Amino acid sequence: MYLADEAWPDLESYFETESLALVPLGSTEQHGPHLPEGTDHLIAEALAREAADRTGYLCTPTINVGVSSHHRQFHGTMWANAPAFRDYVESITRNLTYHGIDRVIYVNAHGGNVQHLREVGRRLRDSGDAYAIEWMWDESIPDLVDDLFEQNGPHGGPKETAMIQHIAGELVHDDRLADARDGGLSAFDEFTGRKHGARTFYDAIDNSANGVFGDQTDATAEKGQQLFEAASDQLVRLSEWLADQPFESLVAKRHV
Amino acid sequence: MYLADEAWPDLESYFETESLALVPLGSTEQHGPHLPEGTDHLIAEALAREAADRTGYLCTPTINVGVSSHHRQFHGTMWANAPAFRDYVESITRNLTYHGIDRVIYVNAHGGNVQHLREVGRRLRDSGDAYAIEWMWDESIPDLVDDLFEQNGPHGGPKETAMIQHIAGELVHDDRLADARDGGLSAFDEFTGRKHGARTFYDAIDNSANGVFGDQTDATAEKGQQLFEAASDQLVRLSEWLADQPFESLVAKRHV
Amino acid sequence: MYLADEAWPDLESYFETESLALVPLGSTEQHGPHLPEGTDHLIAEALAREAADRTGYLCTPTINVGVSSHHRQFHGTMWANAPAFRDYVESITRNLTYHGIDRVIYVNAHGGNVQHLREVGRRLRDSGDAYAIEWMWDESIPDLVDDLFEQNGPHGGPKETAMIQHIAGELVHDDRLADARDGGLSAFDEFTGRKHGARTFYDAIDNSANGVFGDQTDATAEKGQQLFEAASDQLVRLSEWLADQPFESLVAKRHV
Amino acid sequence: MYLADEAWPDLESYFETESLALVPLGSTEQHGPHLPEGTDHLIAEALAREAADRTGYLCTPTINVGVSSHHRQFHGTMWANAPAFRDYVESITRNLTYHGIDRVIYVNAHGGNVQHLREVGRRLRDSGDAYAIEWMWDESIPDLVDDLFEQNGPHGGPKETAMIQHIAGELVHDDRLADARDGGLSAFDEFTGRKHGARTFYDAIDNSANGVFGDQTDATAEKGQQLFEAASDQLVRLSEWLADQPFESLVAKRHV
Amino acid sequence: MYLADEAWPDLESYFETESLALVPLGSTEQHGPHLPEGTDHLIAEALAREAADRTGYLCTPTINVGVSSHHRQFHGTMWANAPAFRDYVESITRNLTYHGIDRVIYVNAHGGNVQHLREVGRRLRDSGDAYAIEWMWDESIPDLVDDLFEQNGPHGGPKETAMIQHIAGELVHDDRLADARDGGLSAFDEFTGRKHGARTFYDAIDNSANGVFGDQTDATAEKGQQLFEAASDQLVRLSEWLADQPFESLVAKRHV
Amino acid sequence: MYLADEAWPDLESYFETESLALVPLGSTEQHGPHLPEGTDHLIAEALAREAADRTGYLCTPTINVGVSSHHRQFHGTMWANAPAFRDYVESITRNLTYHGIDRVIYVNAHGGNVQHLREVGRRLRDSGDAYAIEWMWDESIPDLVDDLFEQNGPHGGPKETAMIQHIAGELVHDDRLADARDGGLSAFDEFTGRKHGARTFYDAIDNSANGVFGDQTDATAEKGQQLFEAASDQLVRLSEWLADQPFESLVAKRHV
Repeated sequence: MYLADEAWPDLESYFETESLALVPLGSTEQHGPHLPEGTDHLIAEALAREAADRTGYLCTPTINVGVSSHHRQFHGTMWANAPAFRDYVESITRNLTYHGIDRVIYVNAHGGNVQHLREVGRRLRDSGDAYAIEWMWDESIPDLVDDLFEQNGPHGGPKETAMIQHIAGELVHDDRLADARDGGLSAFDEFTGRKHGARTFYDAIDNSANGVFGDQTDATAEKGQQLFEAASDQLVRLSEWLADQPFESLVAKRHV
Repeated sequence: MYLADEAWPDLESYFETESLALVPLGSTEQHGPHLPEGTDHLIAEALAREAADRTGYLCTPTINVGVSSHHRQFHGTMWANAPAFRDYVESITRNLTYHGIDRVIYVNAHGGNVQHLREVGRRLRDSGDAYAIEWMWDESIPDLVDDLFEQNGPHGGPKETAMIQHIAGELVHDDRLADARDGGLSAFDEFTGRKHGARTFYDAIDNSANGVFGDQTDATAEKGQQLFEAASDQLVRLSEWLADQPFESLVAKRHV
Repeated sequence: MYLADEAWPDLESYFETESLALVPLGSTEQHGPHLPEGTDHLIAEALAREAADRTGYLCTPTINVGVSSHHRQFHGTMWANAPAFRDYVESITRNLTYHGIDRVIYVNAHGGNVQHLREVGRRLRDSGDAYAIEWMWDESIPDLVDDLFEQNGPHGGPKETAMIQHIAGELVHDDRLADARDGGLSAFDEFTGRKHGARTFYDAIDNSANGVFGDQTDATAEKGQQLFEAASDQLVRLSEWLADQPFESLVAKRHV
Repeated sequence: MYLADEAWPDLESYFETESLALVPLGSTEQHGPHLPEGTDHLIAEALAREAADRTGYLCTPTINVGVSSHHRQFHGTMWANAPAFRDYVESITRNLTYHGIDRVIYVNAHGGNVQHLREVGRRLRDSGDAYAIEWMWDESIPDLVDDLFEQNGPHGGPKETAMIQHIAGELVHDDRLADARDGGLSAFDEFTGRKHGARTFYDAIDNSANGVFGDQTDATAEKGQQLFEAASDQLVRLSEWLADQPFESLVAKRHV
Repeated sequence: MYLADEAWPDLESYFETESLALVPLGSTEQHGPHLPEGTDHLIAEALAREAADRTGYLCTPTINVGVSSHHRQFHGTMWANAPAFRDYVESITRNLTYHGIDRVIYVNAHGGNVQHLREVGRRLRDSGDAYAIEWMWDESIPDLVDDLFEQNGPHGGPKETAMIQHIAGELVHDDRLADARDGGLSAFDEFTGRKHGARTFYDAIDNSANGVFGDQTDATAEKGQQLFEAASDQLVRLSEWLADQPFESLVAKRHV
Repeated sequence: MYLADEAWPDLESYFETESLALVPLGSTEQHGPHLPEGTDHLIAEALAREAADRTGYLCTPTINVGVSSHHRQFHGTMWANAPAFRDYVESITRNLTYHGIDRVIYVNAHGGNVQHLREVGRRLRDSGDAYAIEWMWDESIPDLVDDLFEQNGPHGGPKETAMIQHIAGELVHDDRLADARDGGLSAFDEFTGRKHGARTFYDAIDNSANGVFGDQTDATAEKGQQLFEAASDQLVRLSEWLADQPFESLVAKRHV
C-alpha cells in the first residue's frame, strides 16, 4: 500500500491492524559517467514499493536527498549535512508514531546514509517511541552480489548498474561502461586508501577520478532482475518478521 | 533537465552556463476523502518538471514531506517539525551553491511550507550565498482560480481536485466529491475561525471535520488542465525572468 | 494588573483564580521619517495594558525587539534572528505555566512577528502545555482601519501614525507626513513586488526608499483614539472569551 | 539619545560619528513582599537612560526578562532559560553591528544575568565583531553601597529598595519593610548555604522563605537618589572611557 | 572506588547501596612558565581519587579539557567552547542516572568551569533527574589558603604551585618561580582590570604577560601536602553529607 | 611530548616546527566480567603516549568517555550522547588549530566512536580548518590480530584482554576468562544478529548476556606486548607519514 496514493479514510483500517511502515531513502549524487544521479533513490523506491505491493505493508514517499558530501566534487551531487538529515528523518519517523506506527524499515540504497539511519534508529529506540532499522538491499543478498560479477565495487559498480538496467534501463549509458571502469577504481577493497590502519580518504574523488568503483562491464538487466527479485524477497521476509514481533521484544532490554 | 536522470558528465555544461535550479516541494498529508495524500507533492513535481522541460532549466528531485502537523489528526499525514524542515531545505540549497547554483525557485504546492521557505530564502539571501524564492502555483494565477470554481477553498478544494484529476486522475475518488464538500467546510475565508481578530485555530480539524475546505463538485480534469497550463506558463516566465537577473540585483540592498 | 508593578504576595490570588496572561510584543525598527522606531512596541504595550486595566487580567512586561531583519537597511533597526526570537518567547511562555498560566494572548503590533508567534503557539499547544494565540490589533478592526484612511499600508502608514499620534504624539514628526508618503510606496497591495506569483522581495527597502508604505497625511490623533478604543474593545472581548473556555476545548483535538 | 524614540533619519548622524550603545537588561522576578517584580529592569532602564541623556550616547529599549529560574517558586517570576537568553541577547547585539556599533555596555541590574552576558560578550569579542561588557550598577559603587546600609544583601535588600524608592516610590510597600526583613534572610554572605566549600543551594527559596536577602528597614528614597547619582556617574565615565578606546585595543590580544 | 578500574559485575553492589558519584574535571591550559598545562586536571583527579579511596564512594574518570578560551593566547591551551562543554558534561551526568546515581559532586579545579557546572547542575535539578553540585578545592579551605602564602592569586599562583609540588613535583620548574612572579601579575584582586565597576578584560593575557597571577616563591611541597590533606578532608565530609541526604531534600522546593 | 606535562614556554618550539597532534580517545564502559571499564581509554592513551615518546610528536590528554549507550545495561557504563560527543571533540580539535595544529590523529580504541570521529573529521576538512583522521589500533594490524587468537571478537575479546594484560595486568581478572567466554557470545561475525540483511540489534546485551564477544582464554600478556608493539609501530609510521604531507594534499580536492 502506497501511502501517498491513498485518501485518508482508506488508511484507517491499515493503522487499526498494522503498525509497520517502509520508508525508502536514497541519495541524489554522481554515480559515474554511465548511471543517473538518482540511482540510489530509484533503487530504494522500487524495492520498497515492490515489497509493499507484495505484502500489503505501508510504503511512504521517498526521501530523495541524503548524506552525500563525499561525492560533492562531481556535478550535480546534492546533499544535506548530516545533522540536518538525521533530524529530518527522526522528525518524520517520530511523527509517524502519531498514527500508531511503532516499527519502521528504512529501505536504503545509499551507503552514506547507513550510520545516520542507525543513529536515528537508536534515538527512537532509546526513547521507547519506535523501533526503526536500516536495511540496505545489497547487504541482504551478499552471496548473489558476489557471484554475479567479476569485480564488484561499493559505488557505481556492476551491482548498481545492473539494478538500474533492470529498473530504468533508459537511464543507463550502456556505451560508457568500459569508460566508467577505466576512468575509476575498479579494484576497491576495505584497505584501499588506508595508511597504517587509518582511513585517510574522505571523498570518492580521493580514490577514483570519475567517481566509479568496480567493473560494470558484465552488468546486464537480467542480472539486475535477479538482484531485484532476490532483494525484494529479503525485504518481504524482513517485513513479515518485523510485523510479527511483539513490541516488547523490540524495545531496549532492561538493565542487568 | 531533470537532475536525477542525468549522469554527472552530462550536467557539466549546464553548470557552466546556468545558475538556476527548480526545487519542487510538497507535502504528504490528508486532502480529504477524495484526494490522495500525495496531492501537494504530485502537483509541485509535475509543474516543476513541466517548466524544466519547456525551458531547459534544471529541476531537482522533490522533497515529499513538509510541515503538515496541522493535518495530523487524519490518518497518514506525514510531517517534519518546522526547525528540522527548514534546516534540511537550507542545507540542500546551500550545498547546491557548491556547483554554482545561485538562484533557486522553490516550486511549492503546500501552504504550510510557505513561511518556512521564505525564512530559508531569507537566510540564504542575508548570508549572500543564494537567492531563493518560494512560488506557489495558485498564487500565480489567482484570477483563473477564482473564475473556474463556485466555491474555492485553501485545502482539498476544487483547484487541487482539478489539478489531480488532470495529473493523476486515477487517484481521485470522483464518487466522493459531494461527500467531501458536505463533510467539510465549504465556505472558508480569511476570518473563519477568528475571534476578535485572533486566529484561534491551529489545526485543519478545528474547522473541518473531514479536512476539506471548499466545494469540489465542479472540478474537472479539463479545468485542471487549464490550471496546469496557466501555472506552468507563469513558472516558465518566472524562471526566465530570474535567470536573466544579474546576481547583484538579487542580493540584499545596502544600508541607506 | 501589570505583573512588573506587583510584589509577589499580591499576585497569589490572581494565579489562584485566573490562568490567562497578556504578553505584549513589538519591534524596534524604522517606521519611516515621521514615526519613532519604537512604534510597534509602544502600540502593543499600550493596548495590552489598557485591556489588562479594564479586565483585571494579567499583563507582563513587553518584549521590545522582534524579528525585523527586513528593515535592517535603515538606521537603528534592531532585530533578533528568527530562531533566537522563537526560542526566547517560547521559553518565557513555557515558564509562565509554572505559575498556572495555561492560556496566553501575544498582543502583537509587528507583522514580522506573526508567523513566529504562531509557530511558538503551535509548539506549546502540540505539547499540551499551554494555549497561546497571536493577536494583532489592526486585524481585529479591519473595517474601521479601512474606513478611516484613503490609502492604508502595512508599515509606517496612516493607521500606525494615528495610533502613535494618540499614544505618544510628541514622538511623531507631523511636519514630515507628506515627505513620508512621497518618499515611500503609498500604494501597496498583496501583489506589489510579485513576479508571476512569487514574492520576489525580502526587505522593505526593495519596495520603498524610505521604508514607508501608505499615505499618512490623513492620520490624526482623533482617529488614533478611535482605533485604540476599538482595538482595546476587541482585546477585552478576546480576553474574556479566552478566560471562559475550558482548557480541554483549547488543546489539540484528538486523532479521528 | 533613546533609540526607540527616534525616527530613522535622525539616527544617521549618530552612527556616522559614534559606535557605542547602552543596552539595559534586567529581570522580572520576585523581589520580596515589598518591591515590585520589575525592580531590576526598572533600575537598569533608569540608569541607562540617565547616562544616555547626560552623554548623548545611544540607549536601546530594555530587555525585561532575564535568567531568573532561581526565583521561580514565587508567584509571577518570569524567566527565559539560559541558552535562549544568551542567544537572544547575542543575536540582538550582533545585529547592532550592522549599523556600525562595535562596543556595547550591557547595563544590567540582575545578578543572574551576569555570567550569561559575560559569555555573550566573549563570543562577540572572540569572533572579532564587537566588544560588549557587562556593567552592574552596585559593583560600580561598592563603598557607597556598603556605607549606606547596616545589613546589605544581594536580592531585595536595602540597596534595591532605596533605588526603587527613588525611581518609582509608588511601587514600594514601605509598610512591609520589617516583614520583608523578618521573613527572609537578613544576614547573607558568600558562605551562607555552602557545605565544605560547595554551594549546595540553587534557588533563592533554599535560603530565604520570602525571597529577601538583607535588611531594608534603613532604606530611603534619599539614599536611593545618592546611589542613583553615584552609579550614573560611573556609567557616564565608563561610557566615555569606552567610546574613547581604539577598537584595536578592545579586541582580543594576539597569540604570544 | 575508581569506576574505570572495575569490571562491571564488581560495581553491582555499589549501585545497589549508593547513589553518589564524584566526577573530576579540570582543564588543560597554560599555568605559567613553571607549572604543567595539566595542573587543574591533575589536582582534580588526585583529590577525587583520594576522597573516593577514603570513603568508598565512586570516582569516575576525569574530564581533562574544560572551558579555557581565556588562556588561549599561550601555547598549548586546550578548550571546548562553553555550549559544547556544558552539553557533554550534562549528557554524561544524565546518563549516569541510568545506573541509579542521583547525586554528583563535580570535583573541579578550574575556575573557568564553575559557572558552566552550576548551569548543568541547575538543568539536572530543575528536571528532577539528579542533584549535582560543583566543588572547587580552594573554596573549601579559604583560611588555610590565605594563611599559607604571602600573595595568592587565582591562576598559576602559590596554592596551585604547592599542590603540584606535592602531587607531581617532577612537573614543576622550581627554578622558574621568581620568573613566574616577575613576568606576571602578582597582586591581583577582584577589581584589577575593572573600569567604573565593569570587568573590562576577558583573557588572562589582558592582565598578565606570562599568564601568572600571584607570587609562588613561597610555595613548597609541604604546604601542598597541607592543602591536599585539608581539601581532601573537606571533600570527604561533603561526600558523606551528600550521601546522607534524602533525595527529596535535594530536589527543588515546591512553589510557595 | 605530552602536552599536559609541559609548561607553555616549552611548547613554543614544537608549534613553530610541527603541526601534528595525537588525541587519544576511548570509552568507559563494561568490558565483560574480566576487564576494567577503562579498557578502551587505557589502550588509547598507552598507544598515543608511546608513539609520542618515540617520535616527539605532541600527545594531548585523553577523552575518557565516548559514545557507549549500546553498553548501558551493564553497571557503570558511562556515555555521552552522540551529538554532544561530536561537538565536544570538534570544539577541542578546532581550537587546537589556534596554536597552528592542522593535522590530528584520533588515537581511538572504541568502535562506537569511529563513525563520530569520522564525521568530526569531515566537518574539519570540509571547512578547510584541519585534517583529522581516526585510527583504531586493531585495524592497523589485522593479520597479527587474526593470527594470535583462536576466536576473536569485537568487544571484551582476546585482543583487548591481551592488551590490558600487558598494559595494566593488575586490572584483569584472569580467573574469570573462561566465565567471560561462556557467559557471552564467543563466535560473533558480521552477520550475527542480522535478519535478511538488516542489523536488527542495537545493544551489546541483545547478543551477549555478559557483554563479551570472543574467547579470551588464550590471551596472554606476551601476546598483548606483541600487539602493543606492532600497533605502536603502525601509529609511529602513520604519524611520520602524516607530518610529511603538504597541507594542500590533505584538504578536500577541488570540484572536477
